[in-house]
Amino acid sequence: MATIKVPEISSMATIKVPEISSMATIKVPATVPSPAEDCDQLRKAFQGWGTNERLIISILAHRTAAQRRAIRATYAETYGEELLKSLEDEISGDFERAVLLWTLDPADRDAQLANEALRGWNPSNRVLIEIACTRNSGELFDVRRAYHLRYKRSLEEDVAKHTTGDFRKLLVPLVSSYRYEGIVVSGKLVKSEAKMLHEKITEKAYNHEELIRIFTTRSKAQLIATINHYKNEYGKPINKDLKSDPKNEFLAALRAIIRCTFCPERYLEKVIRLAIKGLGTDENSLTRIITTRAEVDLKAIETAYYKRNSVSLKQAIKGDTSGDYKAMLTALLGHDDA
Amino acid sequence: MATIKVPEISSMATIKVPEISSMATIKVPATVPSPAEDCDQLRKAFQGWGTNERLIISILAHRTAAQRRAIRATYAETYGEELLKSLEDEISGDFERAVLLWTLDPADRDAQLANEALRGWNPSNRVLIEIACTRNSGELFDVRRAYHLRYKRSLEEDVAKHTTGDFRKLLVPLVSSYRYEGIVVSGKLVKSEAKMLHEKITEKAYNHEELIRIFTTRSKAQLIATINHYKNEYGKPINKDLKSDPKNEFLAALRAIIRCTFCPERYLEKVIRLAIKGLGTDENSLTRIITTRAEVDLKAIETAYYKRNSVSLKQAIKGDTSGDYKAMLTALLGHDDA
Repeated sequence: MATIKVPEISSMATIKVPEISSMATIKVPATVPSPAEDCDQLRKAFQGWGTNERLIISILAHRTAAQRRAIRATYAETYGEELLKSLEDEISGDFERAVLLWTLDPADRDAQLANEALRGWNPSNRVLIEIACTRNSGELFDVRRAYHLRYKRSLEEDVAKHTTGDFRKLLVPLVSSYRYEGIVVSGKLVKSEAKMLHEKITEKAYNHEELIRIFTTRSKAQLIATINHYKNEYGKPINKDLKSDPKNEFLAALRAIIRCTFCPERYLEKVIRLAIKGLGTDENSLTRIITTRAEVDLKAIETAYYKRNSVSLKQAIKGDTSGDYKAMLTALLGHDDA
Repeated sequence: MATIKVPEISSMATIKVPEISSMATIKVPATVPSPAEDCDQLRKAFQGWGTNERLIISILAHRTAAQRRAIRATYAETYGEELLKSLEDEISGDFERAVLLWTLDPADRDAQLANEALRGWNPSNRVLIEIACTRNSGELFDVRRAYHLRYKRSLEEDVAKHTTGDFRKLLVPLVSSYRYEGIVVSGKLVKSEAKMLHEKITEKAYNHEELIRIFTTRSKAQLIATINHYKNEYGKPINKDLKSDPKNEFLAALRAIIRCTFCPERYLEKVIRLAIKGLGTDENSLTRIITTRAEVDLKAIETAYYKRNSVSLKQAIKGDTSGDYKAMLTALLGHDDA
């Protein structure tokens, strides 16, 4: 019979606690107070006449996801109330949203963001793509697990419920897939699938089953190799060819998948740029990117932002926001001089 | 702003070690030798002139998945060789396949079975459905994770590669879904989706997007409520209506999904029955069911088997198999008198 090989399955027995990324912007003090001490300070911030918002920021914006989780657990145990509930009672507006989103576990935060995006879904909403394609496979699965806990149904069920037509054909597999994370790339597939993509795009068969399959199931390394080959072989970047009709939201969704896969920090830079640009700020998008990336790759996004706009992200945010909200975002950027 | 609720996300931090099910047939001694002692005995079984197959059975067939994992780890550490490799060198045939499959971790075993099914896939192959629908959502995800480790690509990529047409439309989402596991059922959906299923089935639109979505994404509790309502409302069990053409393999696949969801032990009983029936035995199927269910629900399958065949599963297997293979299977059934 065929050989049965034993892979290192023992890695399934543990969940890695993510260490802080070198691309993270948050600053964690060298000596972190115990969760009990942090809770005590937070409680003080809530008490008395008025809330001490800056004290809240000085604690929560300087703790990792694991530390915030410990604070939430200790707080609930000590005061018999959820920390998020207390925060909700004490603060408001954009500042509240930023603090609450930040305080959540990343997977649970993404589950909430995905659900919000779905409840108000329209074809120009690309939050689901952002979540599905800028998180790694394990993180996306954690989001699906958190979604079960929070909403008592699956993410893919809700995607199918709230989306229609080609978007549904694209987004259901996109959130369901568990892409291989390794760097092994099949050169044969690169060629055959670049050819297939080129054919379908030339025929304007953008919703073709094969195109959707390639976009939604291939590993990031494989997909990147395929779109590189596409450019070499057919002379134009795939995203140029996917821009035949700039008003077509489905094409925009396909381009977003490619951009999130190929260069997430540049994609996310653009989301921030558009959120800040012009009159009025899209606080929802700004808050989402800062809170979801501050512990991941916000430094790289800052670099991309400076390159593209010749102004630092910190300056741009300071110019466009105010008060405690401004202080919270700049703290997450690693600055405390708001 | 909308309330942000905190579900009990802390459960994400631990992976439950599955306890032995009350429906398991394997017998584990009250006092289990240490992994080192077991390895020592296994090594003895391999040494000298000929192999002591019964000693191998007396150890491995009486250990849980966690215990077998510890034995594998200790063996590799002590002898610098994988236990599975040693077993492969020492034993052969159906006995070898049964011992190797049994010794593997359940998720890794399923990954291997899924891959075998895919490499030789044809429309009558229902192993993928068996794996996708009789395991729970967490177990199915573990299979996908094990598949990455073992094959360096995703299960859904391989399903898309090896299947075609309607089967591909059905099987890719089937293995990709992460069904909600709770018992919360939406009565409104039960009605609307039973109606939708009835419409599509009446129109013979068996490959309709909505039918596939319902079959592949709904929680088991929701799907069972829907097919119960279908029967009440439309007078016939859905599987009767899905039998309009008994030779249509796609309809058979849909029925298998319903049966695996509704009553897995009766579905699996039938797989065993067909494997044993007639001249010659389908050892592959028999081995698969016994090794994958001995620690899960083989007692319930035995009960279903006796009800349906008026002969005990143990007697049937003894009559149809021989030698060490027979001894291994009956040991997994909890008997040592083969």
